Amino acid sequence: MASKPTLAKQITRWRNFQPAPFEDYLVVEEPLEIRVNGQSLIVMMRTPGHDFDLAAGLLYTEGLIQSGDDIGAIAYCEDDEQVNLQNIINVHLTNGQRLEEQSGWQRNFHANASCGLCGKMTIESVKRETPPIESDIQIEQDVFYQLNDRLRLAQAVFEQTGGLHAVGLFDSQGELQIIREDIGRHNAVDKVVGSALLAERIPLTEHILMVSGRASFEIVQKALFARIPVIVAVSAASSLAVELAQENEITLIGFMRGKSMTVYSRPDRIR
Amino acid sequence: MASKPTLAKQITRWRNFQPAPFEDYLVVEEPLEIRVNGQSLIVMMRTPGHDFDLAAGLLYTEGLIQSGDDIGAIAYCEDDEQVNLQNIINVHLTNGQRLEEQSGWQRNFHANASCGLCGKMTIESVKRETPPIESDIQIEQDVFYQLNDRLRLAQAVFEQTGGLHAVGLFDSQGELQIIREDIGRHNAVDKVVGSALLAERIPLTEHILMVSGRASFEIVQKALFARIPVIVAVSAASSLAVELAQENEITLIGFMRGKSMTVYSRPDRIR
Repeated sequence: MASKPTLAKQITRWRNFQPAPFEDYLVVEEPLEIRVNGQSLIVMMRTPGHDFDLAAGLLYTEGLIQSGDDIGAIAYCEDDEQVNLQNIINVHLTNGQRLEEQSGWQRNFHANASCGLCGKMTIESVKRETPPIESDIQIEQDVFYQLNDRLRLAQAVFEQTGGLHAVGLFDSQGELQIIREDIGRHNAVDKVVGSALLAERIPLTEHILMVSGRASFEIVQKALFARIPVIVAVSAASSLAVELAQENEITLIGFMRGKSMTVYSRPDRIR
Repeated sequence: MASKPTLAKQITRWRNFQPAPFEDYLVVEEPLEIRVNGQSLIVMMRTPGHDFDLAAGLLYTEGLIQSGDDIGAIAYCEDDEQVNLQNIINVHLTNGQRLEEQSGWQRNFHANASCGLCGKMTIESVKRETPPIESDIQIEQDVFYQLNDRLRLAQAVFEQTGGLHAVGLFDSQGELQIIREDIGRHNAVDKVVGSALLAERIPLTEHILMVSGRASFEIVQKALFARIPVIVAVSAASSLAVELAQENEITLIGFMRGKSMTVYSRPDRIR
C-alpha cells in the first residue's frame, strides 16, 4: 500500500451522456495500528501523513496521557514483516505502564474511539476532569470571516482530491499556526492537537480551532482537552456539541460562510 | 434529553458586522447503548429515530448476525432508572448466545465500530466471507442524474438543520425505497440496511445505495454485506473504498452533481 495522502488513478468521468477516461486523484485511506508500550491499543482508518501527531493527539484527547512528557518516543514498528511498517506505530510511554494496569482504560478507550462517547455519563466525567476554559481572548469579527479562505489556501491536498477534511489552529489575529488534513475530521483534530502537544504548546488558551465540516460532540471534547476557547465550523453544530461548549465556556461558531456565521455560545469573545 | 431528531434553540446569527438573535434548529446527537441479550455491546453517538433499524443494521453489517431470523426481538430497555430509556436498546438474539461465547467477537467488533477497520487484514476476511456481488442490473444514465434531487426532496430533517447525512436506497428505475438520516453517515447506512433486513428484503442485488457525503471503506463494506451492487456518493471516494469496490464487483460512483459523475469501477452497469 502507498503511504502518500493521494493516489493517481484512471477513472471514467461522465458529463451529461458522454463518458471519458480521466486521471483523477483519490484521497488515500489506510489502516493505522497504534501500540502503546508494544501493546495494541486500536486499529483505525486514517490518511497517511503526520502519523506521530495523530498518535500523540489521540492519546491526549482521549485522556490516556496527561502531557507530552508522558511520551518517551514514537516510532514506526520494525519488528513485523507481514504488514506495511508505515501502518503500525509504537508509542513508548515514560512510565512504562501497560494498558491493563490502568483500570478500565482499554474498555473506555474503545467506547470513546468508536462512533462517539457515552453522552451524559461522559459529559459528566469530562466536566469533572476538565474545568471550564478560562480565556479572556478577544477576537475581531473580521478575523473570523478570513479563517475559511486562509484554511483553504493552505490546504495542500484538498484541491487535488476534494476528499479531505482540514483542521487549522489559528492565533487570535487569525494567523494560521498549524494545519492538518485527514479523511476523518476527528483524526485531523487529533493531528493538530498532537502537533501542538509534541511542540509543548498546550494549553492553547489563546487560539481558534477551525474545522472544515460540522462540529460534533467529539470535536468539542477534543478541543476542550487542549483548552482551546474558540471553535469555528464550516457546517452545523450538533445539540450535544452546543451543550458541551456552553457548559465549558467555549465559544462555538457554525455555518461560517462568507461574511455570515452562527454563534452558539459565549458570543462575548467576539469584538 | 430529547429524543427528537431536531431541537429548536436561540442562537446569535451574524451577517457582516450585525449580530441578531435567531431561532435555529440543531440536529440532535445523543448516545445509544446497544445491548445484545442484555450484555452491553457498544455505546455510540447517533441521531434519535429508527433506532431499531440502526441496531439491526449495525449487527448485520458488522457480521454479528447472519439474517433477520437471528433477531428475536428489539426493545428499549425498561430496567434502568438512571438514564433515558430511549437511549438503551436490547436486541434479543434467537440463539441466546452471549457475546463472549463467540470467540473474538467483542474485540473485533470494537475495532470495527471505531474509526474504521483493520485495512488489509479485514479486506482479506471480507473477501473470504462475502463473495463478489453478482448482479446484472442495468441502469439508465439518466436515472443517476435524478437520484440526488430525489434524495434531497425526501429529506425530512436536512432542510431544517443542514446537519444530517441522508442515505437512500433506490430501485433500478430510480424509485426511492428507503431513506434514513443521521449525524453519522455510517449510521444512516446501517439504518437503511437494518430497515431492509427487518423487512426481509436482503439481499439487495437490484438496488442502488446513495449517500449524501463521501464514500469511505466502511460505507462500501456495509453495502457489500447487504449485497448492494451500485453505490453513489455525492462527494469523493477513498482509495480503499475504490479498491474494495473493484475487488467485489461493485459499481462505485462519486462526485454526483448535476449531470456529472465519476465512475470508479464496473461502468458496464450504466446504460
